[in-house]
Order: sequence, then structure tokens, then C-alpha cells
Amino acid sequence: MTAPIAVALGDPAGIGPEIVAKAWSAREEERLPIFFAVGDAGSLCHGWTGPVARISSPEEAAGVFEAALPVLHVADSGRIKPGEPTPEGARTALASLELATGLTRSGPAGALVTAPVSKAQLYEIGFTYPGQTEFVAERCGVARDNAVMMLVGPTLRVVPVTTHIPLGEVAGALSVELIVAKARSAARGLMRDFNIASPRLAVTAFNPHAGESGMIGREEIEIIAPAIEALQCEGFDVIGPLAADAMFHPRARATYDAAICMYHDQALIPLKALHFDEGVNVTLGLPIVRTAPDHGTAFGIAGRGLANPGAMVAAIRVAAEAARSRAA
Amino acid sequence: MTAPIAVALGDPAGIGPEIVAKAWSAREEERLPIFFAVGDAGSLCHGWTGPVARISSPEEAAGVFEAALPVLHVADSGRIKPGEPTPEGARTALASLELATGLTRSGPAGALVTAPVSKAQLYEIGFTYPGQTEFVAERCGVARDNAVMMLVGPTLRVVPVTTHIPLGEVAGALSVELIVAKARSAARGLMRDFNIASPRLAVTAFNPHAGESGMIGREEIEIIAPAIEALQCEGFDVIGPLAADAMFHPRARATYDAAICMYHDQALIPLKALHFDEGVNVTLGLPIVRTAPDHGTAFGIAGRGLANPGAMVAAIRVAAEAARSRAA
Repeated sequence: MTAPIAVALGDPAGIGPEIVAKAWSAREEERLPIFFAVGDAGSLCHGWTGPVARISSPEEAAGVFEAALPVLHVADSGRIKPGEPTPEGARTALASLELATGLTRSGPAGALVTAPVSKAQLYEIGFTYPGQTEFVAERCGVARDNAVMMLVGPTLRVVPVTTHIPLGEVAGALSVELIVAKARSAARGLMRDFNIASPRLAVTAFNPHAGESGMIGREEIEIIAPAIEALQCEGFDVIGPLAADAMFHPRARATYDAAICMYHDQALIPLKALHFDEGVNVTLGLPIVRTAPDHGTAFGIAGRGLANPGAMVAAIRVAAEAARSRAA
Repeated sequence: MTAPIAVALGDPAGIGPEIVAKAWSAREEERLPIFFAVGDAGSLCHGWTGPVARISSPEEAAGVFEAALPVLHVADSGRIKPGEPTPEGARTALASLELATGLTRSGPAGALVTAPVSKAQLYEIGFTYPGQTEFVAERCGVARDNAVMMLVGPTLRVVPVTTHIPLGEVAGALSVELIVAKARSAARGLMRDFNIASPRLAVTAFNPHAGESGMIGREEIEIIAPAIEALQCEGFDVIGPLAADAMFHPRARATYDAAICMYHDQALIPLKALHFDEGVNVTLGLPIVRTAPDHGTAFGIAGRGLANPGAMVAAIRVAAEAARSRAA
């Protein structure tokens, strides 16, 4: 029996509390493991009328989980209006993240799941990390560049080598070392967290038609192919560079365990086209398991009961599977 | 009753003849309109043993179509070995394309469908066009820049604003004028060929997260948004720039008739992820209807009976629908 999963509720004015509550309501049909919320217990009463049980430590979660959503109350965020984020709410979100991370790092929680936060609000209260991932990495003593984002759907896993930079700067940001580092982390993460003994990686090309032997760009020849050779030398099962438009249909997806993609949209377009409501962000390379639903706070629909909990349900399930894989 | 559709067989050593023959075999269950092949009749006997009827003019196609695949024989390509393209084969492919285009332009054929050619072989025999599209455009008296490629699948239509250029050069190639011209052609094509009275266009962003108000790139602010405003001023129903990764799931696709995409893979990744075996390339902006299956010669599997005719079947069907839409 693994420890319960800590779920940080994210911004109290976003859809985080609602989708965590809905995930708890669906715990039986979705066969979810025991988890507990970390955040403002008051934020759970917007758009949801189910039972909540305040707990004072993760150990109490198992005893109440069948009858109520266990909540480790962090702070009152003041008056919460769904859809209207405040600095107080951001402070609660940050305190929740910090506590949930610490509980996972120190053992009482078996894995960390994070609901979405408002980066704009976090920046206003002095948060200096690009996002929750980098914060968690630092709290785990891992350099942020070594924390690798993998997006996971039921039939596709993708790792973007570059993320939130202008597309025009991607070519300059790519290097053999960067691709090797990301692919290596991805392979190790698939072994450790997904119980795949010999992960098969497929590396995308950067240019259309994989550059057509240098006729349409040279990044394949100068950067991507050498990176693949280096990975193969290290013993990894890697193919590519492959024309990105021919890699994501069902037969192609069946040939690899993860696609290593050169830029954000190259990874996220296929993942979200295929698995929009169930995409999970998994942070590889950490001493703890950390997942998150691959969507934002959705302030526009918060508090109206409209939020789809699919990605949160999937994030909790993936976290549980990863924790089991590590324990095995 | 519209005129029969002319199907140029493409490279005789590729899968073109096979998929055209298979499309004819499936004419009843797929409810295909009357069509005839244009090319080397001998190329049809590789991997297919069905009946072929040589005809001497398109008018004869209707009389024989029920019992045999009508073929307008263009030339003998010499000894054809599937998978091994030759200059003779390329000459036949070019002659087929020229005749099929001419018959469509002058009226006896109701629409043009082109099977894949080997560009490398065509270049060797002196072909100076980037591809079949530009050749057809010139034969129709249309400047090649005004011939717009739209890729069509059962649930998605995409128009790449730039095509076969290095991804690193796309930002420099984008302009308000180019986006407006492509989007305008797309809207007119949807009206004319797809019978959509008020086409809804969705324009992609270029950078991740649509640039996040300029934080991750400025192409949205400086080029794409102004292009959208200009199109709206002209009365077109256009939204964007939209984060490309959130545009291609089922609910998003239901909100527009075509996505105007900034670069090749942004358009082709979602189209092929969703509709790999049934993608159709439609050339908009021509005085004739022209479609093609969205795949290559597949020399690696030619002559073995393995080729999937799905995209050819779809190309013939889309061509027929477009011809009907124009005639209405």
C-alpha cells in the first residue's frame, strides 16, 4: 500500500478545486487511489456540494477517503470569487504547492499532483520561477534544466526539447547536447515511472519533410542526426529524425514509447488534437513523482460546474502508476 | 450529369496505378463517380488483375466504367519495375499530367485528380516546376502564387500559408499580404468548391501560446492579427490568432471550416495525425477542379498490392463534389 497522493488545489479562483472535487466524486468508477487535497478548504464549496473532511496529516486520508474528500487546509484565501484571481488566492496556491511538495519529498505523500495556478498572480506576489515545475524541481534539489516535461495521453507521449520560447528562436536554441539530455531523461523516466524496460524513442525533424536531405533546412543533418547517433551509442533505442507530420497517426504511434519533439507546438498539437481532455504533464528527473493536468485555470468557466475533470483524473491515475512503478 | 473525372496515373513505378485500380474496384461500395485513368495502360497490371478498357476519348468512359477501368493510354514506359523509377516513367507521368490537365481545362473531363509523381525523376528529365500543382496552375493560366493548397480530411481542412521552406525562414516569409491572400483564396475556394455559403476561418498563431501578448514572440501582434483585421474588414468570418495546440481537438474543429496555418507541419501534423489514410490535397484558385491524394509514390511498397487506396478514393470523391458545387 503506497502513501496517499497529495493534490495541490492551485488557484482557488480557478477550476482546480472543482476538478479535484469531481475527481473524488468519480473515485469509484475511475478506480482512483487514495488522495487528499492541499489548499483552502473553502474553495471546494464553489460549484460542488459533496462532503469534505478536514485532516491534519496525510495519514488520516485513508480513513476518510471513502466518505469524504480529505483536505489539508492551508489558509483562508479571503472571499473567493471563482474567475477572479487575487493576490491572497495566489498566496494560498503557493503555500499549497509548497506544503504538498514537502509532504511528497519527505514521505507522507506518495506522489504530487498540482492543479493549475495563475502565473500572472504568482508573479505579482514575488514568485520568481517560470512555473510550478521549476519551483518543485528546486525544492527537490534538482537543477531546473534537469526537470523534463513529458505530456502523456492514452496513446501518445511527447517531450518538447524547447518549450516557451519564440518559434523563431528555436533553431538557435537546439543543440546536440540539449536533445541528448532531454531524450536521455525521457528514456530514464519511461523506465522508472512507466515501467518500460527498453523505451523506444522517436525523434522529430525540425523542418518540413525532415529537411529533404538538406534541401529544406540543415538542422536535421547538423544537430538532430548527430544527437540521435550519440544516443544510440549510449545504447538507447532511438529512431529519427522523422518527418513530424508522418509520426502521429495510429500505426506510427505504435512504433515508439515517446516522441522527442523540437518545439512546443510540434509536441502539443498532436497530443491535444488526440487527447485534449485527458492530457497529463509529467515531470521527469525528480526524486518525487509529479504530475499535473495539461490545462490552465480556465477562469472563464470557474465556479459554474462546467469544468471537465478528465485530465485531473488522468493526472492522479498516472501519478499512482508512476509511484507503483518506482516502488516495484 | 457531369463529365467524367480524369485521373493522371503519376509515376508508373509508384503506387499510383495500383490505388487508381483499387479505387475502381471499390467504385460501387464507395459510390464513386465515373472516372478514367490517363497514363500507361501497362502500369495497371502490376499487383492488379482486374479488367481494363482502353478508350480513345473521355466520352467513352461512361459506357465502359461499369465493366472495366477506362484508360486513355498515353505512352509505353518501357519495362516497368514497381519501385524502380526511370526517366521513361517520368516522361509518361508528365505526358499523362499534361493530357489530363488539358482535357479538364477544355471540358471533356469534369475534374482533374493526380496520382503521385517522383519529383527527383521529373527534375532529371528537365521538369522545372516545384511540383504538379505549379505545372497545372501554369497550364491554367494562373500565377503559381495564386494556386493555394488546401489539405482536406473528413473532419479537418487546413491551408498552409508557407510550405516547403526551412522552418527557420518562416517568420521572415510571413507577411500581412501573404496571409490575407491565402485566407481569401481559402474562403473563396470553400464557397466555390465546397458549397459553404459563409466560410468560417480560424487562423493559427505562430508562437507557442499564441505568443502570450508578445512575451513569447511578436509575429501575432505584428503580422497575424493585422492580417485577420484586414480580412474581417473585407467581410470574411475569421478568428485568431489562436494557440495552435488548442485548435485541433473535436470541439475546436467544429467551430471553423478551415484552419489557416503559418507553416507546413503546423497544418500537416494535425491533418495526418487525424486522417493519415484519407487526406486529400485540393488546389484552390484554379479555373478547374484539381485534387490529389496527400501522399507520395511509396516506391518501397509499390507493386506488392499493399497500397491503401483510401486517399485516392477520397480525392476522387472530393473532386466530384467540387465539380458538382461549381456546376450548381
